[in-house]
Amino acid sequence: MTNRIAPRSGTAFTVKKGQKIKVIDPEGEQVSDIYCFNAIDIKEYLSSGRTLDYNESIEFGKGSVLYSNRSNEMLEIVADTVASHDFLLTPCSKETFRHFYPEETPVPGCHGNLVNAFHEYDIPEEYLNTTFNIFMNVDVAADGKISVLPPKSKAGDYTVFEAKMDLIVGLTACSAGESNNFTYKPIEYEII
Amino acid sequence: MTNRIAPRSGTAFTVKKGQKIKVIDPEGEQVSDIYCFNAIDIKEYLSSGRTLDYNESIEFGKGSVLYSNRSNEMLEIVADTVASHDFLLTPCSKETFRHFYPEETPVPGCHGNLVNAFHEYDIPEEYLNTTFNIFMNVDVAADGKISVLPPKSKAGDYTVFEAKMDLIVGLTACSAGESNNFTYKPIEYEII
Repeated sequence: MTNRIAPRSGTAFTVKKGQKIKVIDPEGEQVSDIYCFNAIDIKEYLSSGRTLDYNESIEFGKGSVLYSNRSNEMLEIVADTVASHDFLLTPCSKETFRHFYPEETPVPGCHGNLVNAFHEYDIPEEYLNTTFNIFMNVDVAADGKISVLPPKSKAGDYTVFEAKMDLIVGLTACSAGESNNFTYKPIEYEII
Repeated sequence: MTNRIAPRSGTAFTVKKGQKIKVIDPEGEQVSDIYCFNAIDIKEYLSSGRTLDYNESIEFGKGSVLYSNRSNEMLEIVADTVASHDFLLTPCSKETFRHFYPEETPVPGCHGNLVNAFHEYDIPEEYLNTTFNIFMNVDVAADGKISVLPPKSKAGDYTVFEAKMDLIVGLTACSAGESNNFTYKPIEYEII
């Protein structure tokens, strides 16, 4: 069954160890932020810093493993037609919108949408850290400068994550114009 | 007054808004991990992802501002004789030592030392995220590969942080050989 995440929104769900989450960009050039918690202990959560450390890379694709703050494997990328993702930047919040898009009315952003989605699982806002930003195209120049570029994903492109433990997962359709080339499209996902 | 952090250890203390923390590498080639919380609400903490986002860079030096998960300014670098720091990687824990140094007996690392130091302020372990790693020399190659290189700091080099709010601060002398060129030296700091 294919589930649809409406533009500028988010959802949360549980998966069992061994299940796969296929995240699809149905129209192309859209970003989806994913975050997860150990389903039986939410004090264990996805960690950008541990993952960058153990992968020894800021680039991710098939075979990359995403780790928890306790150094356990949480997700493994088992298929990927894009292999252009970001794990440096936090999801946009209302404050991020005020910073980067002062002319827009601030929206909750992926941060606010994930916070709302995780409320169902009694996960407090402060437990949400840097998300893995699927299809987000972030360039780091030789001088360290970070640039957010249009996603490389085309219509129908996907990334498949295998759960390495029972997880509570949050997933969004990106709200920030710069990240999705100002297209604000939906995201689709399947639990396999 | 100059305070000394013994090799492979850590401490925590409070500072008021406007006070400055001078972190000194007394012998050179040592790394110090810093982390902080809003002193009146520990649910607000230093955020790598927000800081990378707002600085639009993975490089930091004089003038760089370090932000909280709530997008508020926490620390500003107001003097810096090194300008080579890292804000990508999490502090080493026992599990990190098992991963990178399987031949060594695992030590608490900067993660464990910060967790212990923050206990005094009733801050739970899961609130500790990616630290700002002062003097840590991390190279990101064009292909995204991360390399940890010997620090560029020489004896007496320092970085000064100004507190932008009242803070609980944790600070360490690095325990991980690869980060400090296998020298395991002390760190000094002054509250100005």
